Amino acid sequence: MTQSRPDPRAPVASATNLQQLVISVDAMGGDRGPEAVIGGLELAAAEHPDARFILHGDQAVLTPLLDQKRSLSSVVTLRHAVRAVTMHDKPSQIMRSGQDTSMWSCIEAVRLKEAQVAVSCGNTGALMAVSMIRLRRLRGVTRPAIACLWPSRNQAGFNVMLDVGADVKADPEDLLQYARMGAAYARTALSLDVPRVGLLNVGTEEHKGRPEMRTAYELVQEASEDGAFSFEGFVEGGDIPGDRVDVIVTDGFSGNIALKTGEGTAKFVGEVLKSTLRSTLLSKVGALLAMSSLKKMQLRIDPRRVNGGVFLGLNGAVVKSHGSSDATGVAAAISLACQLAREDFTGRIAAQVAPAAAAGQDAASDGEGASN
Amino acid sequence: MTQSRPDPRAPVASATNLQQLVISVDAMGGDRGPEAVIGGLELAAAEHPDARFILHGDQAVLTPLLDQKRSLSSVVTLRHAVRAVTMHDKPSQIMRSGQDTSMWSCIEAVRLKEAQVAVSCGNTGALMAVSMIRLRRLRGVTRPAIACLWPSRNQAGFNVMLDVGADVKADPEDLLQYARMGAAYARTALSLDVPRVGLLNVGTEEHKGRPEMRTAYELVQEASEDGAFSFEGFVEGGDIPGDRVDVIVTDGFSGNIALKTGEGTAKFVGEVLKSTLRSTLLSKVGALLAMSSLKKMQLRIDPRRVNGGVFLGLNGAVVKSHGSSDATGVAAAISLACQLAREDFTGRIAAQVAPAAAAGQDAASDGEGASN
Repeated sequence: MTQSRPDPRAPVASATNLQQLVISVDAMGGDRGPEAVIGGLELAAAEHPDARFILHGDQAVLTPLLDQKRSLSSVVTLRHAVRAVTMHDKPSQIMRSGQDTSMWSCIEAVRLKEAQVAVSCGNTGALMAVSMIRLRRLRGVTRPAIACLWPSRNQAGFNVMLDVGADVKADPEDLLQYARMGAAYARTALSLDVPRVGLLNVGTEEHKGRPEMRTAYELVQEASEDGAFSFEGFVEGGDIPGDRVDVIVTDGFSGNIALKTGEGTAKFVGEVLKSTLRSTLLSKVGALLAMSSLKKMQLRIDPRRVNGGVFLGLNGAVVKSHGSSDATGVAAAISLACQLAREDFTGRIAAQVAPAAAAGQDAASDGEGASN
Repeated sequence: MTQSRPDPRAPVASATNLQQLVISVDAMGGDRGPEAVIGGLELAAAEHPDARFILHGDQAVLTPLLDQKRSLSSVVTLRHAVRAVTMHDKPSQIMRSGQDTSMWSCIEAVRLKEAQVAVSCGNTGALMAVSMIRLRRLRGVTRPAIACLWPSRNQAGFNVMLDVGADVKADPEDLLQYARMGAAYARTALSLDVPRVGLLNVGTEEHKGRPEMRTAYELVQEASEDGAFSFEGFVEGGDIPGDRVDVIVTDGFSGNIALKTGEGTAKFVGEVLKSTLRSTLLSKVGALLAMSSLKKMQLRIDPRRVNGGVFLGLNGAVVKSHGSSDATGVAAAISLACQLAREDFTGRIAAQVAPAAAAGQDAASDGEGASN
């Protein structure tokens, strides 16, 4: 049965690799308005000259902004949408009546295969809801997840963590899917052959944590036997920026809390550092001398550099950029989208996760048969 | 009914305030051995000249160490225990047959009211298990919790967070008790009259998160009406080092993950800072000039300064020092124990939580009566 499964590490020969690279970008809904999105688009387009973009939003607002960016005229197609989703809109409302929004239009371009990947800075809940009902879940996936890249001690400089907030709940079977999808994402985003996967828990011993964590442990352990990833067992919060694993798997409640605690702590330490360096004349001079190194450090831990949570488990890839992203942040999200599109990420995940899920069911029945 | 409840902010007139201040210290079980504990004891004793200590552990090991510390001879009583709990011992084993360990002896001194507060660097699970069966839970408390102090933007410099790992599960009623106990702890440890309490969730809107979070929201909201604390609603991971609230309430699973993620992130940022400052000659010189300020910063975010999780909800206070604590860390934990003993912390919690729980049940019946 193992033989019948595709090797997840083999390159996927897909039509997508040959066709035009197109990214669908929602211009509206970010905290800094369409200016930040178009600024980011300009930066990303310069970095990816082979990419084309469909930009969704209010024509009357976007046309004058685009007119100022000559370099974009040949690579951007404007698609008018009368309405924008706000941060206060409820996901359920947008699901029912969001057809005229730029967000909906942005996802629709991926559904219709006009673009390979969608990017939006808008309301996360609404974006997930629209993505779910329009793109639908991949076969074998019960709960889609949001994966993020996390600055770490690893050689790649980042770890993958998921779910960071798609769903507050996850069963052991969901955690197994997250492990598979997270490993696939790490292969593409971090260029790793066999990513090391860990399950987030409150201790590293096998008997620790909630009972469902122990079930998940066994499922992930068993699934790792096909060689698509290696399973390192339970990891703790301290391993998220560490080098023990490449992929940290958890439910969306704990993942979101960890993500925001980590971001908040890094920001707090940065503030204390700044006020420290301003506290005496000597340290001011010192800071001045160390300035260029300190700037490099800021870049190393700057969340904007890795801006973009990726929705995994849908028939199409969606990159969620931070709501407060500036041009640098939006450019990072669009660049990530280009990378995912270039490597036919959606095709890869589908090839790995969906048959794996089917095989997993077979294996479960086989296993039952064998043990009875 | 509100009138019948004691004012939680009123000073408690207790016999404990008048009697000798005694701290029970477990000398064994820490990663750095009894040397670190005795080193810490020496530092703490100098800071608290009115305190006396009962030190538990192997006489043959401890006597020569104590002989080197003349200042301790008049304030320390040695109590022999043949065995030490190791980090690998299972809590259930120690519960059944740990009577001859220094940890058991340490807790026993509090149970017998020879000491007001116990301090141990040993195995957390075992310490909680022994504390639970020997000290027993306070009336009205279903799950005890571990509270920690977290460096923050608040004026006190710290927030209180609980539960950081006593129990992986917490019902809405448990979260309500955590809110009450955490507020009581913040009043003592942070000297706040009316601590601000927040419930950790994945968003600040009332409809966010798991259904049990919304139930907890209502319970804590209602309980805050007696004025013992103010309820600020849901908070997110980023608020843990923030200044929106003084007390962050969550279950032991999320709390432990947040704690370790925060510690791990702070450590990671510190490492990046160090390697950054070493990267060029200019930044090396800069770091040298800023050294004394940078050291102050390290102190500000040094977890050893606030070393000590406090077990709340038992008939007696227990301070759990980090397993890897050095003398500075142990001293911080013992100093915290002295502060708790001096303010009759156990008596205060009991006065607030137990009657509050009883009153809460009355109120619930009253409420039902009124609404029907």
